[in-house]
Amino acid sequence: MSRIAYVDGQYVPHRLAAVHVEDRGFQFSDGVYEVIAVRGGRLLDEILHLRRLDRSRSELGIAAPLREAALKIVMREVIRRNRVMDGILYLQVTRGSAPREHAFPKAATPTLVVTARRGRPPDPRLARDGVAVITIPDIRWQRCDIKGVGLLPNVLGKQRAREAGAFEAWQVDAGGRVTEGTSTNAWIVSLDGAVITRAPDHAILNGVTRLALVDIIRREGYELVERPFTVVEAKAAREAFLTSTTADLLPVIAIDGARVADGKPGPLSRKLRAWYFDHVRAA
Amino acid sequence: MSRIAYVDGQYVPHRLAAVHVEDRGFQFSDGVYEVIAVRGGRLLDEILHLRRLDRSRSELGIAAPLREAALKIVMREVIRRNRVMDGILYLQVTRGSAPREHAFPKAATPTLVVTARRGRPPDPRLARDGVAVITIPDIRWQRCDIKGVGLLPNVLGKQRAREAGAFEAWQVDAGGRVTEGTSTNAWIVSLDGAVITRAPDHAILNGVTRLALVDIIRREGYELVERPFTVVEAKAAREAFLTSTTADLLPVIAIDGARVADGKPGPLSRKLRAWYFDHVRAA
Repeated sequence: MSRIAYVDGQYVPHRLAAVHVEDRGFQFSDGVYEVIAVRGGRLLDEILHLRRLDRSRSELGIAAPLREAALKIVMREVIRRNRVMDGILYLQVTRGSAPREHAFPKAATPTLVVTARRGRPPDPRLARDGVAVITIPDIRWQRCDIKGVGLLPNVLGKQRAREAGAFEAWQVDAGGRVTEGTSTNAWIVSLDGAVITRAPDHAILNGVTRLALVDIIRREGYELVERPFTVVEAKAAREAFLTSTTADLLPVIAIDGARVADGKPGPLSRKLRAWYFDHVRAA
Repeated sequence: MSRIAYVDGQYVPHRLAAVHVEDRGFQFSDGVYEVIAVRGGRLLDEILHLRRLDRSRSELGIAAPLREAALKIVMREVIRRNRVMDGILYLQVTRGSAPREHAFPKAATPTLVVTARRGRPPDPRLARDGVAVITIPDIRWQRCDIKGVGLLPNVLGKQRAREAGAFEAWQVDAGGRVTEGTSTNAWIVSLDGAVITRAPDHAILNGVTRLALVDIIRREGYELVERPFTVVEAKAAREAFLTSTTADLLPVIAIDGARVADGKPGPLSRKLRAWYFDHVRAA
């Protein structure tokens, strides 16, 4: 089956899906995106993703490429044409194509690209055995709350993780505090059982999976503390884990080569993961 | 005359010049670029630009899309086909197109895009009357020495300048020191006549025009001090100016609405500008 992409009003074969070289997404990283999980043919937490997309766009003064109802139809059509039951939908909006100049172009129509692909959840062994992370300095810009496509520092960080044999790199601010992973949010469980994750400030992206977990933790009566934690705290934690749309929830069992607790996925991480999958099934 | 662009081995009509939606330049800002002035049909300071391109690429582990001799031929051919005597050549290299994943793809061929357009130097009134700048916090990533396409903070800063009626926004680090403009380097002349500009650290791009000016200042026997200067210092300076490939050298006569000295282009700025144009003509 050949894949189909949506680009600026047209459904085209994926291999022909292209944007102009003067698209501001290509020349200026002047665009935003979302990755939405498709489960059983449905978009998981679609409204939260669309709300975040609107927020990212608005912060940058990029107009909506389509009204929400039309965008929802396009997303469903891309899923349908690609026959995706389980996988992801990728959506990118840029300020459009215009002769190159830094300031906003006076007339440009936003570019909308929507693609979808089949894909499985992460290898179940990652959830069973847990994953390793390394820590690296956070060298990103100061508006990581905007889900922009300027992801080069994240790319470099993920590559460092891969070269170190780790699943993810946790980025650390100048104060020694973890901000987030290069494509995941970071969490620990303290020795007294509180779940700690950074509050959604300008230094992190407020993950949709993060938001679902926040609700679950509160609903289940665990203590949630939204504050930054240090690398030292993380290494001494009872448990650690990470979350994202594509990684779901994965236990972190090593940080910079040092085991977290006994080096096995923690019991609360396992429980939270099970509850998160209840949420996925109920969505 | 219709314009021609070079994209991945082919010369194509500009309106059809496109890259795949999964090009990592589009989805990850995983690419670098150069803008080279064309003067009298020749590429100004070509070698310095190509050396910087190589450095940017190497820092990111992006392979060369072409050998240098071939790249030079392509650049000349793009200039020739577009009949550009005076204007700019734009060159972008990305890590290539690959299924979306943050870490480097195992197999991807770098994308090379080269375009050129006619254009005049900045409006002579800007040089005659000087330009205004505003100051804004520098919110960019911590590797601005790499000329990457992740320019969204620069875009936002330039837009703020435009909305304030200014030509440029000077970005200011957490210590109150100017790093550089959103697309230009920043300079002042102190009350004792020294020319001050930030040293090429990780916080600024080492401009090719900046390098030419450094040579000129030394050759002409002026004192050059490469160190950061504060906004307070800049506002109290005898002169201020900015440089870039497309702006050449422009006197700065106001900072955040306050006049620099008597609010007129300074004499040293004018001299340096004249010497810079000697360099352009001699190149």
